Amino acid sequence: MSKTPIKFYFDFISVFAYLAAVRIDDMAARYDREVEWHSILLGVSVVRTMGLKPLLETPIKGDYLKIDAARYARRHGLPLVLPKGHELIDPLPPARAFQWLKVHHPDHAKAVALDLLTAYWGHGVDVSRADIIAATAARHGLDGETVAAAAVGHEAKDLLRADVEQAIELGAFGSPFFLVDGEPFWGADKLELVEAWLAEGGW
Amino acid sequence: MSKTPIKFYFDFISVFAYLAAVRIDDMAARYDREVEWHSILLGVSVVRTMGLKPLLETPIKGDYLKIDAARYARRHGLPLVLPKGHELIDPLPPARAFQWLKVHHPDHAKAVALDLLTAYWGHGVDVSRADIIAATAARHGLDGETVAAAAVGHEAKDLLRADVEQAIELGAFGSPFFLVDGEPFWGADKLELVEAWLAEGGW
Repeated sequence: MSKTPIKFYFDFISVFAYLAAVRIDDMAARYDREVEWHSILLGVSVVRTMGLKPLLETPIKGDYLKIDAARYARRHGLPLVLPKGHELIDPLPPARAFQWLKVHHPDHAKAVALDLLTAYWGHGVDVSRADIIAATAARHGLDGETVAAAAVGHEAKDLLRADVEQAIELGAFGSPFFLVDGEPFWGADKLELVEAWLAEGGW
Repeated sequence: MSKTPIKFYFDFISVFAYLAAVRIDDMAARYDREVEWHSILLGVSVVRTMGLKPLLETPIKGDYLKIDAARYARRHGLPLVLPKGHELIDPLPPARAFQWLKVHHPDHAKAVALDLLTAYWGHGVDVSRADIIAATAARHGLDGETVAAAAVGHEAKDLLRADVEQAIELGAFGSPFFLVDGEPFWGADKLELVEAWLAEGGW
């Protein structure tokens, strides 16, 4: 089996992305796999390309998914704060900050993204705020002001747009979404199946 | 833990219902649980109540779900024939036949439904046809003509409508959908989680 990295696609506004993000790298490491993270925008792929509504805003299904996410968090001992109404944050600032970090501080990008996902979904912090992005980057030894400024700059915007477009081309339409040697897996629920795939070499 | 039956909701036009239906009763039996089957209509719950498109007809996602279903079938050694285009059958005749059988031949209803699901999804047989429904019922020792006639009668129609309405009231909007002591689980992917829930007593 080749040891190419697993591609992991996530949107900061996706609770299931958070639930997968905190587990994927450890799982992959057990099979000598790296994980390559890609921030995407469900607002582009799901809502525009596929003509669907945002999941948590879909009647009935949205309520179920909150139960499902809470159960997943309890089972794996993860902190979780679900938004009360429809008040999802703007995913652009953290997604752009992450894209910029991948290019300029590749060794820190993933850890910052994981902190932002955990701050938002685990503790209810508004990670679209520039001061929060700056403080999070600073905790990883980076210049917080530079990162926060880059998150609203043209380079980060272009990087994010290109990654979103490429994700759609590769069929990675959801969050979380995994590509393992080209094999697509969608949903935090699929982490165990991805693990079985790696262990057994596919079916 | 109480030993109330697991409620299993399925639509005949749902490939993931087939993939779960062939496994659910054996799994439940390992935990001394019965499974109570309910045929529902995604056309009512998903399309009308939730405002979504049928899954396999959703761009990109539909293609992914076919890959996912095929992979599931390969992994579990199940036969599978996916519809080539959008030619899903009319789910009303088999769903109504099943509802009528539950009342009039409760010991055979589930086995006939499982045969119909397997004939359609495992072998590409059009199980909306009266002659197919009759032949399937006959293989279980029932009067095939009577069952096929009942499937287009008022009693079966009313029984199905009532079950679909109750499913929506209970929040069972998808297929397959499981209610385990009131706890909702959606998707064939959740069978392993349902099993863990039964084994560990929930989280």
